[in-house]
Amino acid sequence: MDPHAGPDTARPSAQAAPYFEQLGLIGCGLIGGCFALALKQAGLVRHVVGYDARPASIEEALARGVIDRAAPTAAHTVGAWRDDTNGQDVAGADLIFLAVPVSATEEVLRGIAPYIQPRALLMDAGSTKGDVIAAARPALGERIGNFVPAHPIAGKEKAGVAHADAELFRGRQVILTPMQETQTGPLAQAARLWRALGCEVRHMSAEAHDAAFAAVSHLPHLLAFALMDSVAGQTLGPEWLDLAGSGFRDSTRIAASDPKVWRDILLANRTQVLAQSRQLQQALRAFDTLIEHQQAGALEARIARASAERARMNGPQGAH
Amino acid sequence: MDPHAGPDTARPSAQAAPYFEQLGLIGCGLIGGCFALALKQAGLVRHVVGYDARPASIEEALARGVIDRAAPTAAHTVGAWRDDTNGQDVAGADLIFLAVPVSATEEVLRGIAPYIQPRALLMDAGSTKGDVIAAARPALGERIGNFVPAHPIAGKEKAGVAHADAELFRGRQVILTPMQETQTGPLAQAARLWRALGCEVRHMSAEAHDAAFAAVSHLPHLLAFALMDSVAGQTLGPEWLDLAGSGFRDSTRIAASDPKVWRDILLANRTQVLAQSRQLQQALRAFDTLIEHQQAGALEARIARASAERARMNGPQGAH
Repeated sequence: MDPHAGPDTARPSAQAAPYFEQLGLIGCGLIGGCFALALKQAGLVRHVVGYDARPASIEEALARGVIDRAAPTAAHTVGAWRDDTNGQDVAGADLIFLAVPVSATEEVLRGIAPYIQPRALLMDAGSTKGDVIAAARPALGERIGNFVPAHPIAGKEKAGVAHADAELFRGRQVILTPMQETQTGPLAQAARLWRALGCEVRHMSAEAHDAAFAAVSHLPHLLAFALMDSVAGQTLGPEWLDLAGSGFRDSTRIAASDPKVWRDILLANRTQVLAQSRQLQQALRAFDTLIEHQQAGALEARIARASAERARMNGPQGAH
Repeated sequence: MDPHAGPDTARPSAQAAPYFEQLGLIGCGLIGGCFALALKQAGLVRHVVGYDARPASIEEALARGVIDRAAPTAAHTVGAWRDDTNGQDVAGADLIFLAVPVSATEEVLRGIAPYIQPRALLMDAGSTKGDVIAAARPALGERIGNFVPAHPIAGKEKAGVAHADAELFRGRQVILTPMQETQTGPLAQAARLWRALGCEVRHMSAEAHDAAFAAVSHLPHLLAFALMDSVAGQTLGPEWLDLAGSGFRDSTRIAASDPKVWRDILLANRTQVLAQSRQLQQALRAFDTLIEHQQAGALEARIARASAERARMNGPQGAH
């Protein structure tokens, strides 16, 4: 289907926006927290049941009103159960959002698979898609059709539900990478949901997604880590960093990102990441050669090409 | 002298701020334009006489009120002469600011040297200092004592006087790299001037400056150029760039910088730049190896170190 067809491609109308009785939120970190808060602000969900491997995150998510009820396990965010702390029944989730480090995906999906309701929409938010799908197929079994792999192109260099806000996704792109098995119902529902949150929805294959984001996301992070590592590691590094202006600060902003999350991303997409790293090193050596041999004209021409490419990116999306 | 001693280290007082009758502005681009506008806004100069190799820049500088009078040559911004267009006498500059691509420094200094008044303060704004000083010594002769090599740590990725504003330098650092021959009078005057514009003034040797900025400024620019070059140069590059989020945009913002300016900087400081590029490539290969061999623990530790170093940079200076 063409995600840009149909009435719901215009700014979301009440008609186009879906509504969910219960969001099962697995992973109460930055992304999970932003998703729950955005759904609540948009009035798209009645009740949020959340789980996180770290009890402190659950406490904070409750305190901040990100989730309405804490679940003792991931499965309890998905299935029906009775909450003995207050004797209330939990109906079970019609929307399940997985926001955990990608390396935890398979284990979590195995744990929740038996409890996923037949009509529930299940999404992840992983920055890599090939590995998530490879983990989901065996783990989800017959529920694989409910799964819509998703990647919202939004984040912060600060991790944790403490930094969550309802606006993170507004105006951003969300990539959906449906599989053969993905049912069109959940897929269309997922597209409507993200559009209702103010996102532009794109469909890609997992392979095309992983190649693209190795280049425009994973490589820049790897470079930012390496740049900080290289400069800070030199004897005078700390003094030098004291002199850094906005150029260095912007170039390395994403180096402050969550180490566990980025360890997983770089490993999960390692083939594409290493290919992009090699490409970058080739380009860098080409610049080095022009500098070493003082080929001013060729150096200026190559800088001018890069400068023009970057300038072309400014404009409507420049603020992203 | 210790630039941080004396009454003028506090926020500039009327007493501490110097006053100039005539600024001779050589190079009416972004930096020259910002300097003239800042001096005018601070009420530190009566009259600005400007020259630029490009007549269009002179016209725009006049039109924007960056300069009050156009000079037919660089020497006319410095020495006394009669303006035949209106019969007025130009007294000569007591402040001379050189804001041209570093490669033009020697020729310009040779042209103005005979006209520099004995008590005039001469400053440049080059991003490299060793080459500027090497060019200045033979060019300036006995006036070398008037020269205070300066590097304001501020800029924009947009070139030209059209983007000049009076606030660019406020709250930024300015590095002064005095030589043996630099007289203490002009040096102290330069420090007071920059503090009066809201800058923090530091003194360093040209060698220490060039090593530091190769790491925290020239290398990040080189990396940004190489990253744009590498990604945009691949077959699917244009499609991929369409998906780029804020991480890629921030990492490559400085890639849109002026090609001529950066050609000159990378060549002028090539020894230090190439050394930093080699260091960076070493660090990058180290990350690649950890990724290739899936050494999750060591990879996370190395990312965590970079992340902590970058997080440490945030704070009061975080906004720079």
